[in-house]
Amino acid sequence: MLQPQRTQIVETTKIPEQLAGLPTSTYSCLIVNLDLVAHNYNHLKSMTATAECSAVLKADGYGMGAIPMALRLMREGCKSFFVAFADEGVALREAFIDRGLDADIYILNGFFPGSEGVYADFHLIPALTDLDQVARWQAFCHMSGRKLPAALHVDTGMTRTGLPSKEYMTLASNPQLLEGMDLKLVLSQMVYSHDENLTFTQQQRQRFEQAIRHMPKMKASLAKSGVVFLGQEYHYDMVRPGIALHGVNPTNAKNNPLIQTMELWGRIYQIQDVAVGQSIGYSQTFVAANARRVATIGVGYADGYPWAMANKGYVFIAGQKCPILGRVSMDVITVDVTDIPESQLEIGGWAQLVGRDIPVDEIAKTAGTVPYEILLRMGDRFRRVYTAQ
Amino acid sequence: MLQPQRTQIVETTKIPEQLAGLPTSTYSCLIVNLDLVAHNYNHLKSMTATAECSAVLKADGYGMGAIPMALRLMREGCKSFFVAFADEGVALREAFIDRGLDADIYILNGFFPGSEGVYADFHLIPALTDLDQVARWQAFCHMSGRKLPAALHVDTGMTRTGLPSKEYMTLASNPQLLEGMDLKLVLSQMVYSHDENLTFTQQQRQRFEQAIRHMPKMKASLAKSGVVFLGQEYHYDMVRPGIALHGVNPTNAKNNPLIQTMELWGRIYQIQDVAVGQSIGYSQTFVAANARRVATIGVGYADGYPWAMANKGYVFIAGQKCPILGRVSMDVITVDVTDIPESQLEIGGWAQLVGRDIPVDEIAKTAGTVPYEILLRMGDRFRRVYTAQ
Repeated sequence: MLQPQRTQIVETTKIPEQLAGLPTSTYSCLIVNLDLVAHNYNHLKSMTATAECSAVLKADGYGMGAIPMALRLMREGCKSFFVAFADEGVALREAFIDRGLDADIYILNGFFPGSEGVYADFHLIPALTDLDQVARWQAFCHMSGRKLPAALHVDTGMTRTGLPSKEYMTLASNPQLLEGMDLKLVLSQMVYSHDENLTFTQQQRQRFEQAIRHMPKMKASLAKSGVVFLGQEYHYDMVRPGIALHGVNPTNAKNNPLIQTMELWGRIYQIQDVAVGQSIGYSQTFVAANARRVATIGVGYADGYPWAMANKGYVFIAGQKCPILGRVSMDVITVDVTDIPESQLEIGGWAQLVGRDIPVDEIAKTAGTVPYEILLRMGDRFRRVYTAQ
Repeated sequence: MLQPQRTQIVETTKIPEQLAGLPTSTYSCLIVNLDLVAHNYNHLKSMTATAECSAVLKADGYGMGAIPMALRLMREGCKSFFVAFADEGVALREAFIDRGLDADIYILNGFFPGSEGVYADFHLIPALTDLDQVARWQAFCHMSGRKLPAALHVDTGMTRTGLPSKEYMTLASNPQLLEGMDLKLVLSQMVYSHDENLTFTQQQRQRFEQAIRHMPKMKASLAKSGVVFLGQEYHYDMVRPGIALHGVNPTNAKNNPLIQTMELWGRIYQIQDVAVGQSIGYSQTFVAANARRVATIGVGYADGYPWAMANKGYVFIAGQKCPILGRVSMDVITVDVTDIPESQLEIGGWAQLVGRDIPVDEIAKTAGTVPYEILLRMGDRFRRVYTAQ
């Protein structure tokens, strides 16, 4: 791995002014830069010729805050949002109504029997994933005398959600099954993130191509974050980036074309000297081979920082890399501050745990998971601060 | 591993009546049985001769709800609670005040400069972990003219938080440094959970023994969950169980002496047939070797169910084990329901993901982490329902 440039690190690990204003009882903070969210959105938009650029904000915007993200992206021209479940859609709709705003809100999952009224009341667009859902939505439109919007989610290889091709073909050959609703979009979900298996990915695109030919009047959407980068032939009428908005590298290229939007910071609350042979933390997984100075920081796995980072992760203090020594505890980690000058170390001072030089991609790889899970775990707990000009 | 008895499984995986009353838009639910929390507490209490049994409820009671747990445990006679940070203590204190209740609330971490007023206002007891904290609390007591309560956290081997023995001895030989505050407890944290390294564990106990000899007037507390099971010599004046309250096995014995208190359920929202050679989910990590029937369930890693359970975890539907096929997605998993009779499968029906026969310990082992992290991840997201007689 290329070492980031020293001058760059000093820049990306600088303590942001937002932290200075926090009460001392705030021991950790997640900073989300909405300007960078907008930057990433605009970068993605610039890659498409004519396709609309939507935003996938399910699971509270991957833990980073669906509402602030949506509001900012609307200022950049975003008109369509995707979430997973109806209750997420209701929260977004209420935030829009409060501000006199409007946008399309698509619900990807869980159009359960009995939930039709919620969709209608909050102008949510169900992505219908089986024939029963289609029939229920049609019956509800009929009953309420309204031509309500819908999307069709066709399965092209996920075998998870979406109309299996047989059910989709039933709809294509029986257009009366779709009558009475306002069909806005056909969408499908790609199996691979980017270019890991282009043969299968091209097969999926061909299946999608065939599917949309049967529904010529509907708009089409296929590409998620990394797929946007595979070229215009994947863009159709709408692209649906999710993780890319957060600036997590959606490609397999070394250089991230986007900018990571979040930083995670924790306060130092104990500093101590460690003698040779002394162990640190649960189960003695680190034993000092020489004298060390150790700082305890008030962030642990209760805050979403992975337990699996024990003896592997690192933080930045005063622009310097400080490796984690020993286990990650529920509420704290211990890091090596032996080389940090006394003048730059203080109780209540801040350490950066995630940032542009400690990218989420790298943490996920070390912890044996995907960047999505890291974002979600962090987002649930931390005190969040948003920055934007 | 011993296979659980079939009749037992049918019992422990029965759909609880609480789920029946939920709206169809609720796609997942965490059920916490407070009667079982009380049962586990009383079991622990029965193991100590004279020691007080407290409860550690940091990180919102390990994600299971600090307030409902505390209120129930107070009915069982619990009088002392431990949390990690001051804001957790404030939330607990406010819940007590609202109900005209009172209990001791100890704060284990983060007694930051400037936070003294919050401790005093909400009657929170700081566990002081260095000389500076001791001096600050003493100065605050002096300034406010009140003899405020405090605990001393002495380090006996964690090298993470707690007064290093040198600093502790400074206090022991200079009792004037502690004057003016109401010293309630000396505590220390054990390095090992249970009996993994009895030599070191006994060393820690001896160090603690020496430490408390210097503070003869204060109560003493050493034992966390698994340490309670090491015998009376570890109990002192107060034991501090945390994970054991949730019925996660705190010992290394095969038979759990406690009862797991939580169940996690998700709704089925798509059922489909899978042909030979068809792949399931992201990156095609499962390919069907023979025809299968698959159900998609509305719980994924956004809900705290670990991504690492791909192709390893299982759920129960109608009392039968259904293995996860393919990746765990953000909002869904796909499970094999080939052997479930048609009559017992329905859209909107429930699958159990965590329960007494899918214990948290086992999930943690499979996912490569500790049970604590599994509890915390689940607790943050799920709709929680409490049961109690």
